[in-house]
Amino acid sequence: MKRPPTAEIISVGNELLIGHTLDTNSHWIAKRFTRFGWTLQRITVLRDSLAAIKDGVTGALGRRPDLLITLGGLGPTHDDMTLKGIALALDKRLVLNPGAFAMVKARYSKLEGSTGLTRFRRKMAALPEGAQPLPNPVGTAPGVTINVGTIRLVSLPGVPSEMKAIFTGSVIPMLRASKAEAPKEVTVGLVGIIESALAPALDRTRRAFPGLYFKSHPRGREGGIRTLIQLHAYTVDPGSRAKLDNAIAYLLRELSKSAHTGAGRSRRARQDNA
Amino acid sequence: MKRPPTAEIISVGNELLIGHTLDTNSHWIAKRFTRFGWTLQRITVLRDSLAAIKDGVTGALGRRPDLLITLGGLGPTHDDMTLKGIALALDKRLVLNPGAFAMVKARYSKLEGSTGLTRFRRKMAALPEGAQPLPNPVGTAPGVTINVGTIRLVSLPGVPSEMKAIFTGSVIPMLRASKAEAPKEVTVGLVGIIESALAPALDRTRRAFPGLYFKSHPRGREGGIRTLIQLHAYTVDPGSRAKLDNAIAYLLRELSKSAHTGAGRSRRARQDNA
Repeated sequence: MKRPPTAEIISVGNELLIGHTLDTNSHWIAKRFTRFGWTLQRITVLRDSLAAIKDGVTGALGRRPDLLITLGGLGPTHDDMTLKGIALALDKRLVLNPGAFAMVKARYSKLEGSTGLTRFRRKMAALPEGAQPLPNPVGTAPGVTINVGTIRLVSLPGVPSEMKAIFTGSVIPMLRASKAEAPKEVTVGLVGIIESALAPALDRTRRAFPGLYFKSHPRGREGGIRTLIQLHAYTVDPGSRAKLDNAIAYLLRELSKSAHTGAGRSRRARQDNA
Repeated sequence: MKRPPTAEIISVGNELLIGHTLDTNSHWIAKRFTRFGWTLQRITVLRDSLAAIKDGVTGALGRRPDLLITLGGLGPTHDDMTLKGIALALDKRLVLNPGAFAMVKARYSKLEGSTGLTRFRRKMAALPEGAQPLPNPVGTAPGVTINVGTIRLVSLPGVPSEMKAIFTGSVIPMLRASKAEAPKEVTVGLVGIIESALAPALDRTRRAFPGLYFKSHPRGREGGIRTLIQLHAYTVDPGSRAKLDNAIAYLLRELSKSAHTGAGRSRRARQDNA
């Protein structure tokens, strides 16, 4: 099978690390990666610090994802330093990009009927050498993209409406272009069993059906004991789709066997979606 | 001033990276770090992969936080591999810890009236050499703590109720023991101004009051233009608390000055809390 394309997210902002803001942006993006068959390998949340951003970007590039997305820190103020951190990591200068400058200028002349382009506004058009702006239909700071060897680096604003608009307009076409297939997923609800009693049957299923991914999540409780398990199974390999249904059937048979030996408890299975 | 104690979080689980689960655990912990005067430097979200966990833990230890917390991957199943990843990063073996074994045994004899300690259950008591278990009052897998030089490493389960119970019982006492002071915070709502018009006055304020932290968040809209900014200011230095109020007063004066020069728009300020 073809390896699914890989991605990393770097989310920048002290507000995420002091507990003021929950990072819903990464979660929103993660869902889209899955939908288009991409594998998100890592999310890193960093402070508004040049050294931290440089270090985080350098580390992510070293793991060679196909796509590295940074979120936040593109605005006009002093603590918006993502592009400077990226420039440091790439050993490039920040230069005024004419395309980005035109976008920022058009935005302010629409907003204020003037083009008072202070240095704080010009800052949003200063991109690492070789980078290109991505249009921001709902805000001022453009997105930014630059190729680093085989890695595509994309920087998006942290304001959710702006991030989503640029992601939808500019990043989703990149995801589609890879023609990766979305994983086949099956979620099964197991009632009346605790996780450590499920483990032996799950282990046998794993060995019988290699290449599939299983994860159990304890969910419900019954008299202080967690007895509802959500079992999530998927494969990113289109050739293994039929195998997934067989594996679930095998697991349920294994569980009903151990029920007769007294190793487990009574259980019912419900298949939520396939 | 004394440097505030620092922390990192490593959150492990494919469900966080495929977009199934939003990582609210890190956000919950981040708030508590702030409350007790600790600085959370970085959050890393990793897949259920031994190589990823080993690499992530090695990287975090290299940045030398005072406290490194891992979340998730302590359970009985095959994909619960956080302790093995930590053991690899520390070049230690996993050994059956008698204290942890007693905790797991007590839990299952309460649940099932028997002590069917399969290898999947024993797994939860296999800790890196030199580690100690932390009691889990609401679940089975104990938390784990080990000292690595000056760094305290703490591993907690990913199930939120279990994470919170062990954090409250075992980690908050560690945070308190540092006697770090909570930061002094001021949040100001600025109405009728856009972020790039705020930037010059904010820049002057920053230079006049070094050591304070400011971050502006565009929040509201007015006819398609964001004209509400939430300005968040804080200091971790108890000696700078009075300075923070002075800095806000200075910023508001600077903003009203620029209103007369036509560089900005009319604005009102509201102080939300101090």
